[in-house]
Amino acid sequence: MKKFVNDPKNYVPEMLQGIALANPETLKYVPEYNLIMRTDAPRDDKVSIVQGSGSGHEPAHVMTVGKGMLDAACPGDVFAAPPMEYVYETTKLLASQKGVLLLVNNYTGDRMAFDMSQEMSAADGMNVRTLIIDDDVSVKDSTYTVGRRGVAGNFFVMKAVGAASEQGADLDELVRIGENVNSVTRTMGMALTACTPPAKGSPLFELGDDEMEMGVGIHGEPGRSRETLASANEIIDQMLEAVRSDLPYESGDNVALMINGLGGTPISELYLLYGRAHQVLTDQGINVRRNYVGEYCTSLDMAGASVTLVKLDDEIDGLLSAPAEIAIRVF
Amino acid sequence: MKKFVNDPKNYVPEMLQGIALANPETLKYVPEYNLIMRTDAPRDDKVSIVQGSGSGHEPAHVMTVGKGMLDAACPGDVFAAPPMEYVYETTKLLASQKGVLLLVNNYTGDRMAFDMSQEMSAADGMNVRTLIIDDDVSVKDSTYTVGRRGVAGNFFVMKAVGAASEQGADLDELVRIGENVNSVTRTMGMALTACTPPAKGSPLFELGDDEMEMGVGIHGEPGRSRETLASANEIIDQMLEAVRSDLPYESGDNVALMINGLGGTPISELYLLYGRAHQVLTDQGINVRRNYVGEYCTSLDMAGASVTLVKLDDEIDGLLSAPAEIAIRVF
Repeated sequence: MKKFVNDPKNYVPEMLQGIALANPETLKYVPEYNLIMRTDAPRDDKVSIVQGSGSGHEPAHVMTVGKGMLDAACPGDVFAAPPMEYVYETTKLLASQKGVLLLVNNYTGDRMAFDMSQEMSAADGMNVRTLIIDDDVSVKDSTYTVGRRGVAGNFFVMKAVGAASEQGADLDELVRIGENVNSVTRTMGMALTACTPPAKGSPLFELGDDEMEMGVGIHGEPGRSRETLASANEIIDQMLEAVRSDLPYESGDNVALMINGLGGTPISELYLLYGRAHQVLTDQGINVRRNYVGEYCTSLDMAGASVTLVKLDDEIDGLLSAPAEIAIRVF
Repeated sequence: MKKFVNDPKNYVPEMLQGIALANPETLKYVPEYNLIMRTDAPRDDKVSIVQGSGSGHEPAHVMTVGKGMLDAACPGDVFAAPPMEYVYETTKLLASQKGVLLLVNNYTGDRMAFDMSQEMSAADGMNVRTLIIDDDVSVKDSTYTVGRRGVAGNFFVMKAVGAASEQGADLDELVRIGENVNSVTRTMGMALTACTPPAKGSPLFELGDDEMEMGVGIHGEPGRSRETLASANEIIDQMLEAVRSDLPYESGDNVALMINGLGGTPISELYLLYGRAHQVLTDQGINVRRNYVGEYCTSLDMAGASVTLVKLDDEIDGLLSAPAEIAIRVF
C-alpha cells in the first residue's frame, strides 16, 4: 500500500489532529466524538450547519469547516457513516437558539444515523432539521443507496446555506435555500483507477489497464457501465451530456461548472477537462458564469473526475459569491 | 496510461487553454509562445515577475500567475525547459519601465534557456535580472543539476517577490528579497510511486511495492537512498530532520511549514503528515507560525510528499501575509 499511514485505525484521528493543529485559532478537534468544529460555534445569532459523512472524501467535509461554510463536520471512519451517538453529541454541542441544520449526502447508512440522532435531538427539545443531497445522475438505487447518491454537488449546498446562515437566515429559510440549490445541481463521475482504503491495504475493486468505470460512486460503487478507456474529450463529453440532459440545462442558462478530481488525478488534467467542458457548454449557448476546478469531494487516491453543473439564479449566485474561510487554502 | 489526455503533444496547450478559459478577466493564454500572463501586465509602475520551468509541476507555475504572484509563466513541455526563444519573447512581452525579474529553479536546462535569453534581452536594452532557486537539501549535483535543485520552496520566493513588486519595490530590492527568502528555505521530498509522463505512457522509473525513494527529484531523479517502505511518522521524521539540520533551524526560530503533495497523494494524508511535523517542531522549540498543506509543486501523478521550512523574519512574514489572487482557489 503506497500511502502515508501509521496504524490504519488512527488514520482519521491523526488527520483530524493535523487539521486542528494547522488552524489553531479557528478550528478545534473533539476526540471524544471524532469531530472538527469552529472555535466560535455555536453562536445564538446563527443556525449551526453540520455535515456528516464517511471519511476518505477530503476536503469534504472536515476541511470545509469555517466561516461561511460548516460549523462542524462529524466524520465516520473511511467510507463508513458516523456512529449515531456521535451525530447526536455533535448536534448537542452545536445547538444554538436558532437551531441546527444537518446536511447528509444520500447514502442509506448516513441517513439512518442522522434520522435516529435527529429523533433523539427533537425529543430533547432541540430545533433540528435535516437536508438530503442527491446530485448524482449516474444511477438510481445503487449499492449503498436508495434513490440518487450525494456527491461533489454537495459543495454548492454547503456554500449556499453556510453563507445564508452567516447573514442570519432562520432554519426554515435555510432548508428552502438548500433544497433549491440541490434541485438545480447535477453531477456525474468516472474512475480511471480504483482506490485503496488504508485498513484494506489493497484496491477496492479491479479495473483493467484499458478500462474505466463511467458513473462510479465515491466509494467505488459500480456506475452505469464499464467501458474501454477513451480520450479526455470523449470522457468529458459523455459525462457532461449525461449531466446536461438530466435537469436539463439549456441554451440561455447561467451555470456554475465544477471539475472535481477524485484524489489521484493531477490538477493539470482537471484544467484540460475544464477547457473542453467550457467550450462544449459555450457552443450550446450555456453561459459558464462561475467555475470550480480542483478537489472538492474525493475517493481517497482514486484517479478520476466528476463534472457538476448548477443552474444559477440571482440568489444562488449571490450566496456562492459570499466570503468564506476554511482549512483548505493556498496562501 | 490512466490519464485524461487526448494527443500527448497537446497536453500542455490544452491545459493552458483551460486555465485561461477559467480566468477570462485576469489571465490570457498566448499560444505563439505557450505562455500564461496577466491581462493587466506589463505595468510600468511594477517590475514584472516571470517564472519558467518544465510542465508537470502544476499548480507551479502556470496556475500561480495573478495579482501578488507571477505576471507570467513560461512553461516548457512536460519535464522540459521552455525554449530559449520563448523565454526571450515572454521577457519582451512583459518588459516594463521598472524591469523584469526571471525566477528559475536550478536545473541546468532551465538555466541555459534563461541565461541565453537574458543576454538577448540585455542586448536589446531591457532591464532584466535572474534569480535562481535551489532549496532542495536531498542531494548536490544530481541527474539534471549542478548544485542543489529548486523544488517546492520556490513558492515562498514567488510569493515574497510577487507581494513586494505590487508594493512598488525596484528590481535590485526584489533580487535582495528573493535571495534572502531562498537562503532561509529548505525542502526535501520522497516518492511512494513513480509518475507517468503523457508522452511516455508508462512510469518513469521502477519502484517496488515495498520501496520508497527518499530525496526524490521532481522529475523522478534519484534521491539519497532507495529504502524499505516505512510508516508515515518514520518518513516525515526523517525528511524533517534532514531539512531542519541543514540550515539549521533551531529552538526559538519562527518558521513557515509546508507539506506539499506530489500529485497522487490525497490531502487527508498530507494533513496526517502535517500533524506529526507540527508536533515534532513544537517539541524542538521551533514555532510554526504559518502553514501550507496541499499541492504546490507536483510531479504529475507521483504519490509522495515534500516538507519545506522557511525561517521567518518580520519582512518575510509580512510579504507572505500580503493578498494574492491566482487561478487555484476554492470558492
